[in-house]
Amino acid sequence: MTRPQPAPQWPLGARLDDREAMFVAVELSRAVAGRTSPNPAVGALVFDSDGRVCGAGATAPPGGPHAEAAALAQAGARARGGTAVVTLEPCDHTGRTGPCSRALIEAGIARVVFAIADPTAQASGGAETLRRAGVEVVGGVSAADVEAGPLRPWLHRQRTGRAEVTLKIATTIDGRVAAPDGTSRWITGETARAEVHERRARVDAILVGTGTVLADDPALTARNPDGSLRAHQPLRVVVGDRPVPAGSRILDSAARTLVIPGHDPASVIERLSADCCDVQVEGGPRLAGAFLAADLVDRVEQYLAPPALLGDGQLAVAGGGALSIGDALRLRRTAVRALGDDLLLTYDRVTGQ
Amino acid sequence: MTRPQPAPQWPLGARLDDREAMFVAVELSRAVAGRTSPNPAVGALVFDSDGRVCGAGATAPPGGPHAEAAALAQAGARARGGTAVVTLEPCDHTGRTGPCSRALIEAGIARVVFAIADPTAQASGGAETLRRAGVEVVGGVSAADVEAGPLRPWLHRQRTGRAEVTLKIATTIDGRVAAPDGTSRWITGETARAEVHERRARVDAILVGTGTVLADDPALTARNPDGSLRAHQPLRVVVGDRPVPAGSRILDSAARTLVIPGHDPASVIERLSADCCDVQVEGGPRLAGAFLAADLVDRVEQYLAPPALLGDGQLAVAGGGALSIGDALRLRRTAVRALGDDLLLTYDRVTGQ
Repeated sequence: MTRPQPAPQWPLGARLDDREAMFVAVELSRAVAGRTSPNPAVGALVFDSDGRVCGAGATAPPGGPHAEAAALAQAGARARGGTAVVTLEPCDHTGRTGPCSRALIEAGIARVVFAIADPTAQASGGAETLRRAGVEVVGGVSAADVEAGPLRPWLHRQRTGRAEVTLKIATTIDGRVAAPDGTSRWITGETARAEVHERRARVDAILVGTGTVLADDPALTARNPDGSLRAHQPLRVVVGDRPVPAGSRILDSAARTLVIPGHDPASVIERLSADCCDVQVEGGPRLAGAFLAADLVDRVEQYLAPPALLGDGQLAVAGGGALSIGDALRLRRTAVRALGDDLLLTYDRVTGQ
Repeated sequence: MTRPQPAPQWPLGARLDDREAMFVAVELSRAVAGRTSPNPAVGALVFDSDGRVCGAGATAPPGGPHAEAAALAQAGARARGGTAVVTLEPCDHTGRTGPCSRALIEAGIARVVFAIADPTAQASGGAETLRRAGVEVVGGVSAADVEAGPLRPWLHRQRTGRAEVTLKIATTIDGRVAAPDGTSRWITGETARAEVHERRARVDAILVGTGTVLADDPALTARNPDGSLRAHQPLRVVVGDRPVPAGSRILDSAARTLVIPGHDPASVIERLSADCCDVQVEGGPRLAGAFLAADLVDRVEQYLAPPALLGDGQLAVAGGGALSIGDALRLRRTAVRALGDDLLLTYDRVTGQ
C-alpha cells in the first residue's frame, strides 16, 4: 500500500512572479527542514506554459525524490514549455536519485529560476547542462533571503566541510543557568516551551555533555504541547567520558542516541558532519565552553525565560578560553522574539573574525 | 535680569480631549525629568473656556514654579472658566511655592483633570480643596501611562520611602563585563553611546564602587555626541572604603561628586533619598551584587553593545547572595530597543516577590 500524498498547501493555478514564487518555494522547504540531511532542504514550484502553478514539492528524506522531481510529478504533462522555480540550482548528479537537470529537460521545462548555485563539486553543473539543452536559466533570484532560510545549515556544511553549530542557552540576564545550590527549575511560559520543541524538531542532532545527563536526566525529545512525540526527532548525542547510566531518559526508545566518548568538539563535529548539517549544543556550561574555545560556535539562541537576575551560581558558558577582550566571539543579532513574557534572542557569529 | 522663558513646544489654540491633553502633559514633563528632584517631574496644560490650549508648563528645578503655576502664568486671564490637565493631583501645600490648588482657584479654573493622586500626606488634599471651591475634578485619566512615565521614580520614593534604583549593566550575552586579563573596551556603536549619555542626563545620581574608579577612572558625566557636557549632570557618587585618588576624573569640576565610605547599600540609598528619586548603579560587579543581595534593585537596563560571547572573565554581577533559584530577582521586560547593531533590554522587578 502506498501512502496517499498530502494535497499541496499552495494554490494550484496561481500566477506568481519569480520572487513571489521563490518565497513560496522557501516556505515549502521550511516544512521539511531537519528531515533531509545530509541532503539540502529544497523547495520547488512548477508553472505551466501559461504561467500558472501546476506543481509544488520539497525534498523528501534521503533516498526519496528531490524537490524538482516531486513538483514535476505533480505537474505531469502540464510542465511542458513551463517554468521551474527552485531554491537551489538543480543537481547534475546521479546518486540515489537521477539528476534533476535531466528530469527538468525530459519534462520539457523551458525556463529554470533558482536562488543559490550548488557549491558542491559533485552535484554542480546543473545550470550548464540545462543551458546546453536550450533551457533559459536565471540564477541568484532572492539569494540573500534563501541563504538565510532552511538551506543555511546545508550551505554552511558545503562551504566549511562541517555541520553548522548552534549554541542554545537558557539563562538569567546575568548569564547563569543555576543557583549555587544547583537548583535551576525555571517557570518558563508555554510559548517559550513550545518554541524549544519546535526548534528541536528542525535540527539534525542535539548535543549534551555527560555531566548534564547525570545532573538533569533530560529526554531531549521534540514534543507537541500535549506531551506526545513529534513526527521527527533529532539524533541525541552525549559527549564525554563518564558512563551514561542505564535507565537514563536519553537512552529510551523515543529517538536515536549516539554516545561519543571524549570531549574534543572538533572530532565530535567531524563525526556528526557525515550525516548532519544542523547541530545544536544544549549544555552544560563546560561543553558550551569547549565549543567556544574550539571556535565551533556559529549561532547562538538565548532564551531569557523568564527574565531574572541571580547574581550567583552556575554560568551558561564556562571555560571558553578567552584571555583578552579581542578573543570574544563577536555576534550579529538576527532576531529578537517575544515569547509571551519571555524573550528569545538569536545571533550569528560575525564572519571574518 | 530674568531669563526669557522658552516658547512652548505645544500648539497654543489646539483642541484636545482629556487623554490627548494628558499625553502632551507627560511629554512636557519628560523634558524636565532628572532636574526636579526631590520634587516630582509634572507636566500641565491649561485650556480656555472655549477648549483651546492657552498655557503649558512643567516643574522647574526646586524653588521654581510648579507645572500648574507655569501653565497658568502663560495662560493669564484666558484661564478663567477653563480646564487644567495635570499629570499629578495639584498640591495643597505651601512649601517654597504656594499651593497649586489655590493658584488654580484664583485663576478661575472651572475643571481640573489629573492622572495620579498625590500619595504624600503633606501635599495631598488638592482635589478636595478644589471640589470645595466648586471646581469639577476628574482623577485617574491615563493613570497607567503616567505612572510609567517621568513621575515613576518620584512615585516610587513616595510609596517606599527611598529612591528607585536602576542597575545599569553593559555585558556580553553570557553576562560578562571584562576578559580574564581585565580588558573590557567594547566598540559600542554611536547610537548606544548616545543613549547611555541621554539616560545619564535624566537621573539624579550615578553610583560606582571605589574599585571601578581605581580600575577604569570613569568621568561619569552626561555628554553630547560632540563630547561637550550636557546642561544637566547627575550627582556622581563613589561608594567604598578605598580612597579616591586625587586627580581621578570623577573629582573634576564637570559635575558634583559625593564620596560615601562603607558599602552598605541600604545606608547609601537612605542618604541619597533625601534629595534623589532616581539612582543608577553603574558598577562594578561587587557593588551590583551588594545591591542585589540587599534587595535594592528595582529596574535593570542591560546593554548588549556589541553582542558578544566571552565564556570567561569578570561577571557583571557577583556575590548577589542567591543560594537557590527561588532567590532570583524576577523581572518583567518593559522594553527591547535596537540601537543600531546593539541592543538595550529594560526590565522592572516583578512586584510582590
